[in-house]
This record gives sequence, C-alpha cells and structure tokens, in this order.
Amino acid sequence: VRRVLITGAGGFLGRHCLAPLREAAGEVHAAVRPGSPFQAEGMVRHEADLLDPAQVERLVARVRPTHLLHLAWTTEPGAFWRDAGNVRWVEAGLALLRAFTAHGGLRFVGAGSCAEYDWAAGVCREGDTPLRPATLYGACKNAFREVLEALARQQGLGWAWGRVFFLYGPHEHPRRLVASVARALLAGQPAPCTPGTQERDFLHVADAAGAFVALLRGEVCGPVNVGSGQAVAVADVVRRVADLAGAPALLRLGALPPPTGEPPLLVADVRRLTHEVGWTPHRSLDEGLAETVAWWRSHGGREEGGRGGSLPGVRARAAG
Amino acid sequence: VRRVLITGAGGFLGRHCLAPLREAAGEVHAAVRPGSPFQAEGMVRHEADLLDPAQVERLVARVRPTHLLHLAWTTEPGAFWRDAGNVRWVEAGLALLRAFTAHGGLRFVGAGSCAEYDWAAGVCREGDTPLRPATLYGACKNAFREVLEALARQQGLGWAWGRVFFLYGPHEHPRRLVASVARALLAGQPAPCTPGTQERDFLHVADAAGAFVALLRGEVCGPVNVGSGQAVAVADVVRRVADLAGAPALLRLGALPPPTGEPPLLVADVRRLTHEVGWTPHRSLDEGLAETVAWWRSHGGREEGGRGGSLPGVRARAAG
Repeated sequence: VRRVLITGAGGFLGRHCLAPLREAAGEVHAAVRPGSPFQAEGMVRHEADLLDPAQVERLVARVRPTHLLHLAWTTEPGAFWRDAGNVRWVEAGLALLRAFTAHGGLRFVGAGSCAEYDWAAGVCREGDTPLRPATLYGACKNAFREVLEALARQQGLGWAWGRVFFLYGPHEHPRRLVASVARALLAGQPAPCTPGTQERDFLHVADAAGAFVALLRGEVCGPVNVGSGQAVAVADVVRRVADLAGAPALLRLGALPPPTGEPPLLVADVRRLTHEVGWTPHRSLDEGLAETVAWWRSHGGREEGGRGGSLPGVRARAAG
Repeated sequence: VRRVLITGAGGFLGRHCLAPLREAAGEVHAAVRPGSPFQAEGMVRHEADLLDPAQVERLVARVRPTHLLHLAWTTEPGAFWRDAGNVRWVEAGLALLRAFTAHGGLRFVGAGSCAEYDWAAGVCREGDTPLRPATLYGACKNAFREVLEALARQQGLGWAWGRVFFLYGPHEHPRRLVASVARALLAGQPAPCTPGTQERDFLHVADAAGAFVALLRGEVCGPVNVGSGQAVAVADVVRRVADLAGAPALLRLGALPPPTGEPPLLVADVRRLTHEVGWTPHRSLDEGLAETVAWWRSHGGREEGGRGGSLPGVRARAAG
C-alpha cells in the first residue's frame, strides 16, 4: 500500500484505522470534515466537504492515492436509517470513485453494512443471502456497492466492500448501545433497556479497523462480512457491561418495550473473512467489553465519538 | 398532472413524449442540453446541464414540477454500455430526485432498462426475474432505481420505473439497428448484418412514449416493463425493413459474425403494463416498421436522432 486516502478518518471506525494504516502504508492521507478538531500522528490531514464534488476532485487530484478506504457516510445514531442525507452520500461516493479511477487509483475499499441483507435470513453470507435492504440507509449502501462492483469489474480496479455488523469500543457515540449503557452505569444512573432477546454479531471497533486494513492490503475482491461470526443476545452484552461497571442492579432489562421491525437474529457468516482474507479478531467479546468499560471509566465525562464512524449501531431505543 | 418536467426532451424517446404530455399535463417543462437546437410547440424549454447539481437545483426550484419524467442518460450507441458517464448519470438522477422531493414533487417516473435483468432469464418479469445487470449501464440504472424505490417508499412519493426493451422509429440514432438498415437500403447501399437469430422485444418509440405518459398519469407504483411482449427474431425485423425499403437483395444476413455475450432471447412480460397500467401499443410491428421506413424515406439524408433517447438499442454490431 503506497499511498492511502481514508475518508471519515475522524469517525468511530476511521480513527481506529489510523494505527494499522500507518503500519501498512507508505503515506496516510486522512480526509476530515471542515472544522473538525480531529488530529492524529503520522497522517497528512485534509479538510474537505466530500458532499461537494469539486472538493472531492481537488482532494483526490492532490493526493493521488493508490488505495482508498472510504468510510465517510451519514451516521447520526437513530436518524441515519432514514436520513435523506444517505442519498447525498451515494452521490459523494460515486464522485470519489470517479476521481479515484481518473487519477490512477488501484484499490478501493468501502464500508458496507449488514443492513444490505434481507434481515429475514438471520445468518448473512456474502453472495448467498439475498440483498433486500429494509431501510433507506441499506438501500443506499447497496446501490453504491452495485455501481462500484460494475465499474471495478469493467476497469480492472481492485475493490472490497466490508459489510459491518455491530460495533462497540472506545470513542463510540454516547447514544449507541454499549456506550450509553456503560456511561449511565458508570455515572451511577439506571440504564433502561428493552428485554434484549434479539441476537446480534458484536465486534470491537479496533478489530473491525484491523479487518478493513487487511481488506485494503489484500487482494480479495467483493463483499466481505466484517463481524465476529458469533450471535450474542443483546441482554447478555449489557449484563456483562453492567458487571464490568460494577452496577448490575442499575440495569433495567425490559424497562423499554421490545424493538419493532427488527429481526430476532442477525449474525455474520465470517468464512470469507477468516479463510479468504485470512483475518480473525484479536479480542474475545469479554476482553473487548472489559477494555471498553475501562476506557469509558477514564473518559466518562467527555462527549467522545462525535458523529461516530460510518457504521450502523444498534438503535439506542433498541438497546439491551 | 399539473406541471410536468421532462428531462432528455430532445432525445429519441423524449421528443415522442411531448405530444402525449401536452394532452396529459397542464404545463409541460422540458429540459434540454445547453446549446441543443431542439424546439417543440407547447412546452416551456429550459437549457440545463443536468450533470451539474447546482443547475439541477435551480431548474427544479424554478419549475417546481408536480410530476417528473426523467429520461436523460448517456445513450451513445455502442458506447453507452461501458461509458463511465453512466456513473455521473446516477449522481445526476439522485440530485434531481432530491431537488424534486425538496420542492414538493408528487410523482417521479424514470426510464429503466431490460439491461437490469439477468439476461439468462429470456422472458423478464418485474419482481420475479432476478436483477443481475451484465453491464455498467444496467448496474447504474438498477442502482438508481434502488435508491428511488427506498426514498419513495419512505417519503410516500409516487414513482414508476419503465424498463425499456428495444425501440425503433422516427428520429432513431442512425447507428442503431432499424435506422441503420433502413437508411443503408434506402440509399441503395448493402446492409451487412449478423445472422440475426437472436429474438428481441421491439416497440415503436411513439408507443413507448405513450406507455411512459400512462405511467406518469397513473398510480401504479414500481418497475413496469415497457415492451410489446412479443419476441421477434432480429432477422425477421430487418427482412421486413428490407421489403418495405424495396431492397431485399441488399440485405446481407450473416455478413457479420454472430454477436458475443448476448442472450438468444430477451422479451418483456407485459402483464403489469397491460393489466395494471391498462396500456397496450397502438401499432403492430408491421405497422410500426412501415411507418418508420416511410419516415426514413422522407428524412433519409438528415442526421436525425442526435444522441438518441435514454434507451438501450440493439448494438449496431449485433444488428440483423
């Protein structure tokens, strides 16, 4: 990886990609939103409004990246599922893709989502589970992927599409599941949750970042699920968080009604990631949650996370 | 239909829509490319570069259409299948869609294509035949449709998506099948063709225009095939053209090699168009071809058609 450009570098997933990218790439160029306070070592920082095609073209012409890690998208917890901004992010991604190919780019890796799949499937497998997004967010991610795939195939461009499931970890948006429960409990507040019987695939954000950088370095082409491959009940996740926070009595499972319109099971088939990409997570769920609660213990008062990364979270109202 | 904006109004399909639109709509606003010589009675003409989102926004804000008939796309015969401009037309369509909904639009009708379907199917039926585009063009059309569908569903916007099969008729681009054969024969030149065993669904462009205006007036939601429902061998079509041109001896079936990568059969299932939209073609193939050859007889020397409409033709090299 000679020269990488990462978008959404200040987001939840993006900021965790920077350390592994520095290991993997000769030069790391990071696009952040205009006015973003985000700073990090070892990267060339570029402020750009990616929703403006002219700024996209200027940025790409200046950097001339060989590799692109495109994570920027609308991510406001709860709102992103229906945000009309999803449509603009399709346009932005396409302008970025055009500029990247026009300036000699070699490999494009983007962040997809489990929201592209038909949620009735439960276990989602690339190239097998039907793509039938239930949300505008999922439809926009899938539509962008379809154009990326067709253009890449035609032009011989390398590409991969990491379909993200459920992430947690340091710098998570405070309104997302693990962050909101951990922060409430660490502050001595009760944490009202749904019954939490739905099972999900949780992955520590730093592990997801490692998977994306592996996709960028590798040569595997196409969609690849980025998950743990393990289905865990949301109730079990927040119980573990409550134990780690030392406040199990403050957890209020069932204080909120069960979520509507959400599937009982949503888990990644990770055979492509494991066997073709050759990548596995570095942390178990227990280790990851312990690390995360410890991080919130030392950062509890600060509103970290900003607008988060480019990833779907568990809806806050569906928490626990 | 109170106030319609039609894009691609000067194109092959677009210009045939204007007469039925004048019947159907209180006001007809037509977007044409900057510098286009195209003029017609009974419409308000707007020059706009739809690839520029700022011009799209200004146009829609000025017109405030209640109904949109979006036909503009890249259509250069032969080249459009792989044209990187397809990606820009997705962006343009999305910007148009955003502006339309932002300014109170009620119903959006766009031109899709049989190229969205899995061509292995032969007979293509909406909601049944898998969508598996073999080309960048088909992928871009389908990707745009996916975003349109999701946004329309979420916002309660009316929408329809006319999947066009194979058109012919007056003002066809001179390099497309029927036009190229008719013009050559009428000029006393030989018309070299492939063996022409492949079967296709041919529809007179004025009938296709009528179908689109019916989609715009109606309330049927979703994709609707726009075809005749009849599979005809390409050889039979050009033989009929040759007879009508009075030059059967100049037709050279088999002088070109059979096309590669094209399916033997591609025909529309028109049950939705017939029974749900309640629309049927006004001309038989024989009548349509007779009308078309007569038109070319009187327009033979002129390069009509320009860049054509928004539709896939039979590739010139696959002709006959």
